[in-house]
Order: sequence, then structure tokens, then C-alpha cells
Amino acid sequence: MSKVVKYVAGTLIFGLFTEIVYQIYVRLNSKKEDKKCITEVLFFPDLKVACKAHFTSIEGCNNRHCRYTHSGNSLSRLYNYLTLSRKSLDVCVFVLSCADLADILILVHKRGVMVRIITDNEQVNVQGSQIWRLRSEGKFSCLFSGIIVRTDNSSFFMHHKFVVIDNEILINGSFNWTRQAITGNQENLVVMNDPEIVQQFQTEFENMWTEFDPRVTYMKTTEDT
Amino acid sequence: MSKVVKYVAGTLIFGLFTEIVYQIYVRLNSKKEDKKCITEVLFFPDLKVACKAHFTSIEGCNNRHCRYTHSGNSLSRLYNYLTLSRKSLDVCVFVLSCADLADILILVHKRGVMVRIITDNEQVNVQGSQIWRLRSEGKFSCLFSGIIVRTDNSSFFMHHKFVVIDNEILINGSFNWTRQAITGNQENLVVMNDPEIVQQFQTEFENMWTEFDPRVTYMKTTEDT
Repeated sequence: MSKVVKYVAGTLIFGLFTEIVYQIYVRLNSKKEDKKCITEVLFFPDLKVACKAHFTSIEGCNNRHCRYTHSGNSLSRLYNYLTLSRKSLDVCVFVLSCADLADILILVHKRGVMVRIITDNEQVNVQGSQIWRLRSEGKFSCLFSGIIVRTDNSSFFMHHKFVVIDNEILINGSFNWTRQAITGNQENLVVMNDPEIVQQFQTEFENMWTEFDPRVTYMKTTEDT
Repeated sequence: MSKVVKYVAGTLIFGLFTEIVYQIYVRLNSKKEDKKCITEVLFFPDLKVACKAHFTSIEGCNNRHCRYTHSGNSLSRLYNYLTLSRKSLDVCVFVLSCADLADILILVHKRGVMVRIITDNEQVNVQGSQIWRLRSEGKFSCLFSGIIVRTDNSSFFMHHKFVVIDNEILINGSFNWTRQAITGNQENLVVMNDPEIVQQFQTEFENMWTEFDPRVTYMKTTEDT
């Protein structure tokens, strides 16, 4: 009888030991996965415009009478994601007329992040457009060119509103980069890092980047004539 | 020695048996999860407009000289998702001027699906708008009212472009429901059924649905005066 008890006890101890090892492995692995998974929804309008200095600089905001909000909101989250870019920022938006968001692009460009912009050709010259500023102000030393902006040059709209950050995070939705979209309109942005989705948007960006290359457009025009 | 062999063999068989049971459980469970997971990206423009009859009716297209495409594309996938709705279709788009997509809404409304639409007030009367048609044609018998459409009634834009199907599937992106968006513009739609994201959009829809209720607007106006 004692042999049977020993046998059962031994088996249980062995089973318990392997289960503990397995559970530790699973927990460690799931923590790694949790860390990587990003899904966040940002709805607009925000009640107030988020303070750019407060959310993007290490020093924070020094203005005692700052009229912007220091509480987190949808715009501050967008600031966070954009400023966290380390390698590349592929921006593809129909309208880009918000000076604060253009400032962030210039900031990360100066840090050495490769910023590329695709926008609609008819929106380049509208009132408040930041495109010419990005093209010129981005050129801050002889080592760095301005931020390259390409347009669709067609009567149809380049109507996307997405950003791919470091080829890892996608921010996509209805949100154009305008002041009205921040505090006026009903808008949304979905932030995600599902590699399958991100990769499809990155490929879409690369295809448009090639298609809207002025040299390609020039060659096509000369071939047609 | 044979006792030790018996003990080890018994333990291994016991371990193997529990492992097999566990693996069967995991496989069955993961299959269930796989079945539920939807993530699909639709890019526009399509080269041709998808044939509505071919993709939405059981009889298919009887027109031998049909000028629309019978090959699957982004619009045909959108048709598929919309016609598969069983309970509810909460549509929230800035512009709704595509007659084919309005036809689908009337079709599923007639099947008994609860169709609700939120759009921008300034887009209701633009050329080709389908809003009045949806409000009137949806009213097909004394038992059914027309499709209810609510608008924001503000100078800002109700700029979302999303649909929630059966409170389970979200389709969201830059795509307005216009013919130009189908075959002209660069546009995107992301289809997903992550419950966390879908629920946030459903809540956003419900909030706007209440906010844009004409009775609520009327009460607010009378309170202000």
C-alpha cells in the first residue's frame, strides 16, 4: 500500500513541478506579448488644444499663463506617438494645415528621423497649408535636406489620413491634420501595431511614394507625348 | 531496477496522457478564436465598379452585357460585409451619395435589419445625396418606417466614416460613400472585430445618436431661449 502511495505522490510531485515550470514560461511569454500589443482609439473633438511644449519637450511648459491644456487628451496621445518615432515617420494625409503638428514633424526630422509626406496636390496651396514650411524649414543645415513631400497630381483626392511610425505602428482614421479636426469636428484615429495591417499600409505608402515621384511623373509625361 | 523502470514509465504515460488532453483542448479553443478574428484592409481606388447584383443577390447578375466587374475587389468586399448584417447596421459617414451603397442599406432594412445613419448636416442636400431617398424609400409598408437619419446641425463636420455591423464588426477609414471614392481617390477601410475597439465605436455612435436626436436639439434650443 505504501508503494502505491509513494508512486502516486511521486507522480503528483513530478506533475506539479513540470506544471509550475510551464506556467512560469507562459506568464513570462504573455507579458512580452502584452507589452507589444497596441490598440488605442482616439476620438475628437478635444475640448481644448493640448499644450505642445508640455507633452513633447523634456523641459515641459514654462508658461504660467499657458492657454493650452496640460491634461491628457486625444491630441496629446497623437503628440506622444509621433515624438516617440526613432527611425521613420511616413505621413499620408489629405490636408496638413495644423502648425503644431507640422512643428512635431520638423522636430523629429531634426532628430534624424526619416520623415516622408504624401498629400493631395490641391491641398498644398490652401490657406494655412504647412507643406511649403515643411519643405523649407526642415532644411536646417547643409547636412540635412528639407522634408520631402510628394503629391498625387490628379483631379482625384489622395484622401488617406494615416501615419506609419518606425514601420511598426499605424495611426489611421478620418482625422485630417487641421485645427478644426482637433477641436471642432467629430473624428477618429485608431492606433494599432498588428504587423499584418501595418505592413499593408507601409506597402501602400511605398507604392504611392514611387508613383508620385516627380521624376516618374515626368518620364510618364514625356513618354505620352 | 524493474520497479524504477515501472515508476518512470508510469509517470511518463501519465504525463503524456495529460499533455494530449491539454493539447486537444488548446487546439479546439484556438480554432474557435481563429474563426472569430477578422482583420482585413481594403484599399481604393478599384479599377472598376463591382457589380451589385453579382455580389449581393442569390440569383446573381443576369445581364450578359453587364458593364460592371464580377471579379472581387474592395467594393465587393464592402458589399459582402454590409449584406451579411443580421441585426443592426450603424452607419456614420460624412458624405453618402453613392446610389449602389444606398441600395444595400435599403435592401438590408427591408430584411428587418435595424439601419441607423448619422451624417453631416451640410452634406444632406449636396448633389447626388442619397439621404432623402433613404428616408423615403426605406418606408416600404405600413409596418416599417423609413431609415432614420440624424445629422450634427453644427458648422463643424461630422467627419467620421465608419460602420458597426451587428455590434460585432467595425469598418473604418478614410472612405466616404461616394462614387469618386470607389474608382477615383486613394482611400482605405480597415475591417476588424476586436471587441474592445468595436465597443468604443458603438458607444461613440450611441452618444452621437442621442446628441443629434432632433427632440434633444429642440429641448436644448428652447432651454437656451
